[in-house]
Amino acid sequence: MKVLIIGGVAAGPKAAAKIVRMKPDAEVTIIERGVFLSYAGCGLPYYVSGEVKEQKDLMSTPAGAVRDAAFFRNVKNVKVQSGTEALEIDRAGKRVHVKILATGEDAWLTYDTLVLATGASPVIPPIPGVEKKNVFTLHAVPSATTIKTMLATEKVKDAVIIGSGLIGVETAEALVAVGCNVTMIEALPQILNMLDWEMARFVEQHMVAKGVCLLTSTKALALESDEDEAVVARVKTEKESILADLVIMAVGVRANVDLARKALLEIGTTGALKVNDRMRTSDPDIYAAGDCVECVDRLTGRPAFLPLGSTANKQGRVAAINICGGDEKFPGVLGSTVCKVFDFCVARTGLTEKAARQLRYDIVTASVPGPDKPHYMPQAKSILMKIVAERNTGKVLGLQAVGPGDGSKRVDVAATAITAGMTLDDLANLDLCYAPPYSQAMDNIITAANVARNKQDGVMDGIPAEAVHEKLEAGEDFVFLDVRSPQEHAQVRLPKTTLIPLGALRKRLGELPHDKEIVTFCQASLRGYESALILKAAGFSRVRVLDGGVAMWPYEKET
Amino acid sequence: MKVLIIGGVAAGPKAAAKIVRMKPDAEVTIIERGVFLSYAGCGLPYYVSGEVKEQKDLMSTPAGAVRDAAFFRNVKNVKVQSGTEALEIDRAGKRVHVKILATGEDAWLTYDTLVLATGASPVIPPIPGVEKKNVFTLHAVPSATTIKTMLATEKVKDAVIIGSGLIGVETAEALVAVGCNVTMIEALPQILNMLDWEMARFVEQHMVAKGVCLLTSTKALALESDEDEAVVARVKTEKESILADLVIMAVGVRANVDLARKALLEIGTTGALKVNDRMRTSDPDIYAAGDCVECVDRLTGRPAFLPLGSTANKQGRVAAINICGGDEKFPGVLGSTVCKVFDFCVARTGLTEKAARQLRYDIVTASVPGPDKPHYMPQAKSILMKIVAERNTGKVLGLQAVGPGDGSKRVDVAATAITAGMTLDDLANLDLCYAPPYSQAMDNIITAANVARNKQDGVMDGIPAEAVHEKLEAGEDFVFLDVRSPQEHAQVRLPKTTLIPLGALRKRLGELPHDKEIVTFCQASLRGYESALILKAAGFSRVRVLDGGVAMWPYEKET
Repeated sequence: MKVLIIGGVAAGPKAAAKIVRMKPDAEVTIIERGVFLSYAGCGLPYYVSGEVKEQKDLMSTPAGAVRDAAFFRNVKNVKVQSGTEALEIDRAGKRVHVKILATGEDAWLTYDTLVLATGASPVIPPIPGVEKKNVFTLHAVPSATTIKTMLATEKVKDAVIIGSGLIGVETAEALVAVGCNVTMIEALPQILNMLDWEMARFVEQHMVAKGVCLLTSTKALALESDEDEAVVARVKTEKESILADLVIMAVGVRANVDLARKALLEIGTTGALKVNDRMRTSDPDIYAAGDCVECVDRLTGRPAFLPLGSTANKQGRVAAINICGGDEKFPGVLGSTVCKVFDFCVARTGLTEKAARQLRYDIVTASVPGPDKPHYMPQAKSILMKIVAERNTGKVLGLQAVGPGDGSKRVDVAATAITAGMTLDDLANLDLCYAPPYSQAMDNIITAANVARNKQDGVMDGIPAEAVHEKLEAGEDFVFLDVRSPQEHAQVRLPKTTLIPLGALRKRLGELPHDKEIVTFCQASLRGYESALILKAAGFSRVRVLDGGVAMWPYEKET
Repeated sequence: MKVLIIGGVAAGPKAAAKIVRMKPDAEVTIIERGVFLSYAGCGLPYYVSGEVKEQKDLMSTPAGAVRDAAFFRNVKNVKVQSGTEALEIDRAGKRVHVKILATGEDAWLTYDTLVLATGASPVIPPIPGVEKKNVFTLHAVPSATTIKTMLATEKVKDAVIIGSGLIGVETAEALVAVGCNVTMIEALPQILNMLDWEMARFVEQHMVAKGVCLLTSTKALALESDEDEAVVARVKTEKESILADLVIMAVGVRANVDLARKALLEIGTTGALKVNDRMRTSDPDIYAAGDCVECVDRLTGRPAFLPLGSTANKQGRVAAINICGGDEKFPGVLGSTVCKVFDFCVARTGLTEKAARQLRYDIVTASVPGPDKPHYMPQAKSILMKIVAERNTGKVLGLQAVGPGDGSKRVDVAATAITAGMTLDDLANLDLCYAPPYSQAMDNIITAANVARNKQDGVMDGIPAEAVHEKLEAGEDFVFLDVRSPQEHAQVRLPKTTLIPLGALRKRLGELPHDKEIVTFCQASLRGYESALILKAAGFSRVRVLDGGVAMWPYEKET
């Protein structure tokens, strides 16, 4: 069996290794356009920041062996031709036309099975000046190394990042770490479009606190120069021109499907390569895996383009098993994502509120802030969490978690729960590990499920911060009731509030009007909820609880 | 509605608060024998170590309010009578006979619904001398405070802990932290009986490295004194007498069921109070929750006594909902447990190999060591993981994780997967969050599932360290083949091995005998597995792979 694999970064080498393990006689060859093999692309921002010390760390095994062509030959029994570009697939002849870049020589390589692991490439937006010097993407080892060298040898004061996805925010942290003034430009009204806007807002506030100049709803119009026309010096936007010794283009990636398209393989609606759940393309002898393919969203059944190293590895394994005569399915993805943004862990899985509403789900959401460990433990850190579930069935649809606390654990639990079709009730009674150094007795995700259940059952009538903010902006006449302690109120306040601490509320009911709406809140919302119940029991009819309390108020607060 | 709750620590206050939220008119009274209410019992070791600074931190809300009787009255509308012991339940008369401890007065309190949240008490083994001064349990605030005071004011050099469960190991860390010489005595051959023996062995090695003197398979026979007969000075064992200025008895807890037993309520086979899945006892007007009740193991359906604060809180909520006319089930537990042992996170859920074999499951296991983040990230820490699954169905039965890395995340994912009845295949394709600061592209739990699948499919023929050790002890003639690099081999070695690095194996096959069994291994076991496949392909018939490699060899290693 002769297997030819195009692409040597993640899915390709994974498939190759697994094929050779399953069929030791298989003749497996990897064609890679670049020089570097099997490297950790997701580690590049940490290489730029200096956290990862050496380039070779990104392409070594845990035991310290560099995964080069000799490694693949001796250890894996896989032949690798790097610096070799695939030009064309001859499906009828089952062969691939390749060019050796160094010499310009070409050749035809035959295959019994072909695997396309061609990856994705950064999108370069059509902005005048993108070709100038010191304008980079951060996608592969060479660009990372160039950026790192430039940071080490030239005076780079001002850096501008265009785009605010995963690579954008991770690079922002890396560039701040090495001492740059960093400006991030995003055309949309929020960063990290994978989050609901208010969740993204908390991340934005953190980035600003860490010194990043953030320009949302801002388009980069051109990259301008000073004396030297070839070198970037400024990024022009509608509002201003921003100094830029260095520009990183991070507006997203696009699947590399030219080769497949030319070979008339089916392309999906997302623009990535279409495969079935066996990772087979429309040609039964051609498989594909990794960043070049389109996935299925496990929750909605819709096509999704979510290129990630985790998915690439799993798909490479699935493709290999099927190529070797096994029967393995890749069931799809949920959009589980995590990234570190300075001191924040930003994680999500499944659907955001926005996505769920667009898909016309009837939903209930709960916004629940809280420490990731009991508050009395010195290492406790806060997580702002938002859960989305289907109203009728209680089926969990999504979870977002941002903050310094360990949100990735809770999002992984949610991803598992969503995969299993669990409901809020199921989540609420999960037997999760508890000890003070690791978690609260009622884990954050359990509390989130319980709050959502209270809303689902109509026991708690929540109101999103956005709706309250609109009321305030419109000058609407309602009581915005803070039931925290006077000390908490003195520290930080929401606008135009009335303070009656929960412990005094039963005695001071007379101070509240029966003819106005009352919106209650506290720091998180338990006391806000309890006060709403007290008010309802006392005959107040229009009482709602601010979702997420002070902790998750995304607008300005008074201090 | 008049609800009387006996017990004011975890399940009791939780039930009280929820009842009042659901039925604001309910008259809810908590009877508590002690003075402290709603405190974090699981935080006591961290109070002793000084990590938690003040006693009141353990019984305060996140906003800083101390949960005392006034708090319960004003904020929660719950009446609390502390320092009050329940003596007897008159089920026919629906009343409880109580005694106010300070005055000796007694009274009968009536109820419509009674909730027993009487908790559990430390088992005091019948060792001569347990009544001596400076012999403690660490179970409630007063004992913790006494220990802390003693550590602060008297010279405590030598401390002995009898028992090695959760409280035992957490207390060992606390006492080392304050500078004691700590000896731990355990009658069983291993500590932490909730783990398989070899997993416990890794924890034992870590505790010894941290300075704890560990005596397993050792019984404490008596607590002895020097001049002052009333004060403990030594713990006598079969082998030696150990100096002890302080002794902590940590041999486990027993459900407090005297009151229930006297009232002829049904007691379960574990000795804890029997309840149905609505948390109702054999008397329809009496509910129970928390450490005093028997749970159902969700996996096996068998009764289990696993008293934990997390379970107590969930059960208190479920009891409250049913008391208020709702219909809520508590589905049981999986034995999910985590504890911090110095720098190790020790976590487990579901069945150990030992428990699964006792229950006659036909199982497959995989022992998989690995970093919790990509090895190139400086903050990566190791996890030693063991997964247990049913051989035929692939149903995940249990996961254990020990080591400095974040095992609790993976165990929580496993607990969710086991709850959902997921298989190894399901686990292997979970869409878990991936970014280098948080996880590997193929998360440890996914790798563990894949290794177990390879064993399940017969592709990988594993051999446990224990079986190899027996071969070595018996002087059996086999090849113990180390396929790591010479550098790795020079650093640390298993006994009596032959070294052929994987990269050279194909060329050096002639050095290996065809008539002997070959057991291959590397650091983790991927290379061990790959070498076994190479050997099998080359016609070697008796080849097995050491489970977990060097990293999970629980015996002595050569350095």
